[in-house]
Amino acid sequence: MQRSVHLKRTSPFLTPEDKERERQSKRDAVLQTAASLFCVQGYNATQMGDVAEQLGVTKPTIYYYFKNKEDVLVACFEVGFELIESTLRDEGNRARNGAERLRNVLHAYAEIMTQDFGKCTIRISTTDMSKQSRERIDQHRRKFDSRIRSLVKAAIEDGSMPPCDPKIATFTILGSLNWIGQWHKESGDLPPADLARAIVGQLFLGFENGRKKRVR
Amino acid sequence: MQRSVHLKRTSPFLTPEDKERERQSKRDAVLQTAASLFCVQGYNATQMGDVAEQLGVTKPTIYYYFKNKEDVLVACFEVGFELIESTLRDEGNRARNGAERLRNVLHAYAEIMTQDFGKCTIRISTTDMSKQSRERIDQHRRKFDSRIRSLVKAAIEDGSMPPCDPKIATFTILGSLNWIGQWHKESGDLPPADLARAIVGQLFLGFENGRKKRVR
Repeated sequence: MQRSVHLKRTSPFLTPEDKERERQSKRDAVLQTAASLFCVQGYNATQMGDVAEQLGVTKPTIYYYFKNKEDVLVACFEVGFELIESTLRDEGNRARNGAERLRNVLHAYAEIMTQDFGKCTIRISTTDMSKQSRERIDQHRRKFDSRIRSLVKAAIEDGSMPPCDPKIATFTILGSLNWIGQWHKESGDLPPADLARAIVGQLFLGFENGRKKRVR
Repeated sequence: MQRSVHLKRTSPFLTPEDKERERQSKRDAVLQTAASLFCVQGYNATQMGDVAEQLGVTKPTIYYYFKNKEDVLVACFEVGFELIESTLRDEGNRARNGAERLRNVLHAYAEIMTQDFGKCTIRISTTDMSKQSRERIDQHRRKFDSRIRSLVKAAIEDGSMPPCDPKIATFTILGSLNWIGQWHKESGDLPPADLARAIVGQLFLGFENGRKKRVR
């Protein structure tokens, strides 16, 4: 038994698991490179040849992983949405009340908007995609719009946030945060976590004069 | 003198001023139709033939006013920016202090984002435009970003707004308002003026609990 394990480890042949991991990591590299190019030079101006060149491979290698450019773009959106949805799942648990839960989620969301996959979901228009791809994307968008709206409602209900219209509040919040994906540059002066905290802090604080007392 | 005026009014021939007015109103109609189509079906999917068809004219008629589709798009952006810049000029004068001046400008800005020309400036990506067009557009954007930033600074200085980072504040505000251009539908339940007031009001109020006292 011990000997067989030892043999396996030193074998130059990949196990099916190794192969799957390698395939996945190559696919991820294609997506990361494409997302970065889409963000910088735009979707229309980016050719699959540019992606291949950056990775030092030939174009057919890319087409082994993806059918066409739209397929790559949709996969980039999916990664972006998966990142956002994972924050909606994970960040809620550590909070003491609704307002803190909302803030935690928004910090994570804002940080994703400073990354290429998050930026893609905002910068690249979906109008020229196939109807099927657009519907998939709209479904994701409606899903986390409604999740944020529920977080706002819960925070109002447990008294940790003042009463407001959850729909208007969600549009106001998501506008500010999604907009980060539009203007953010890696060369910006604030690290992503600090930028996220600054924007979310500003949203919570508002712009009105007067004494404010935080209630937890 | 009176007679000549009378003659002019009943003449079936257009004066040079009439001709210029007519040319301008036809050009405006082309832009309004194009802006509306760009917003609904996207820039790439819209052909100049679609614009001509909607106006009941032939394609060459459109090309009498504009060189090509990009020329039409850039002109739509220019109208959108001109609308925004006119609010920055006009809305400031009626205000009693910096915070009120900022709010007035933002209400007008938010309303423009519910109109086709405003929506165009947000929905249509500029990445595929010529370098020259992109630079003109970036110049406009920098200009009103810096105008909003000055309004924020002035409101902090005259004490009508609490201290904050004007750069972060401007990104937060413009994000929420520009985002209206992305999601707004004519069929929405709030009239533009009410929607503008709701979003700007929410931005000013913030989401923090605690007593607030308005200082004017």
